[in-house]
Amino acid sequence: MSRVSVKRKVLKENDRIAEELRSRFRARNVLTLNLISSPGAGKTSLLERTLGGLPKRLRAAVLTGDIETDNDAKRLSPFGYPVRQITTGGSCHLDAQMVERGLSSLGDQEIDVLFIENVGNLVCPASFDLGEECKIVVLSVTEGDDKPLKYPATFVKSDLVVLNKIDLLPYVSFDLPRARENAKRVHPGIDILEVSCTTGQGMDDWLRWIDRRLESARQRTVQPAP
Amino acid sequence: MSRVSVKRKVLKENDRIAEELRSRFRARNVLTLNLISSPGAGKTSLLERTLGGLPKRLRAAVLTGDIETDNDAKRLSPFGYPVRQITTGGSCHLDAQMVERGLSSLGDQEIDVLFIENVGNLVCPASFDLGEECKIVVLSVTEGDDKPLKYPATFVKSDLVVLNKIDLLPYVSFDLPRARENAKRVHPGIDILEVSCTTGQGMDDWLRWIDRRLESARQRTVQPAP
Repeated sequence: MSRVSVKRKVLKENDRIAEELRSRFRARNVLTLNLISSPGAGKTSLLERTLGGLPKRLRAAVLTGDIETDNDAKRLSPFGYPVRQITTGGSCHLDAQMVERGLSSLGDQEIDVLFIENVGNLVCPASFDLGEECKIVVLSVTEGDDKPLKYPATFVKSDLVVLNKIDLLPYVSFDLPRARENAKRVHPGIDILEVSCTTGQGMDDWLRWIDRRLESARQRTVQPAP
Repeated sequence: MSRVSVKRKVLKENDRIAEELRSRFRARNVLTLNLISSPGAGKTSLLERTLGGLPKRLRAAVLTGDIETDNDAKRLSPFGYPVRQITTGGSCHLDAQMVERGLSSLGDQEIDVLFIENVGNLVCPASFDLGEECKIVVLSVTEGDDKPLKYPATFVKSDLVVLNKIDLLPYVSFDLPRARENAKRVHPGIDILEVSCTTGQGMDDWLRWIDRRLESARQRTVQPAP
């Protein structure tokens, strides 16, 4: 079997498990968000701010992926929500089977919103459906405004860009309008939020974005069959 | 054929081509450096500073890899050295065959030092030997001091960490001694240089590092057979 056909088979099997997960999430009314970024763009910091700011009525949980270490789970556990580390042991992305196993380890807890923090990699995670409601790409301004053009697949498949570290804008060469234009060029319908996980700027907008997504998901569930 | 055995076969074929390239580089006394980093850590900025600062006697050339766009080749061409863009069309890393083709497109020019700028990805490029003399990992301080522990393979296989963007240290939470300690923990013999491609700080050390490597390569060539 050729390299391409093996890859196709792996992706097909992944998609099958991802569709099962998606059905399960929808049946239980879980909003699942798959966070993708380069290493160090601020996925874990965004989750720290998020878990610290979520309304208490929301039941959240986190599956956080890394090649090695459980540093991220340690950072996120103090917020009082269930957090599980997925250590991929070399793999450059999460796949649906890892998420399935992570979910099992969470047991039968009721969840409103599940955050999946992918491995730090702006390329490979985009190819693996995890059954999420949507992908979100975190881009830090220190990475440069050209990144949507250079790594288009992740931006095409994401519903939202969280543009992080805007507190560093005075110190780096980053053209904000051009970054927005580049993101919209590869994906015209993409939302863009500007935040700083260091100062907390933009966190209200982000929490409102999550809330709107929860609302849409709920409305879909209560609508009568046509 | 299973996924693992296909991957093994692909890597074996890659290694065969990489070894041919390495023999060719050594026979012609070309020092080849494979630059790896996350997206936006500053590989292209480092090369801009490098090409601008190299002694004129040195004949340099660049192969620069990206999934999409030829932005990097456009940035590096004005320095007057031969530069070729390798666009991988989706692949998350360069492989030896792409380097072979890139070299052919450079023709028969004499080269002392060949810079290969890999695709922005801290994971997958580490698995693909390109026939280089050594790998170099560029890590920016905005990414966090824990990255050597989280992405060990790239640090284990690299001879040097170029710690970039140290001009941003006052504005980010980055523990320099801890970063050094983490890099040395996964690879005790690794060299570490602190630089800023924005201010130019540390560029002399980096050019001296290249010069020492050129010297070692030359000495190996002129030594009589035992």
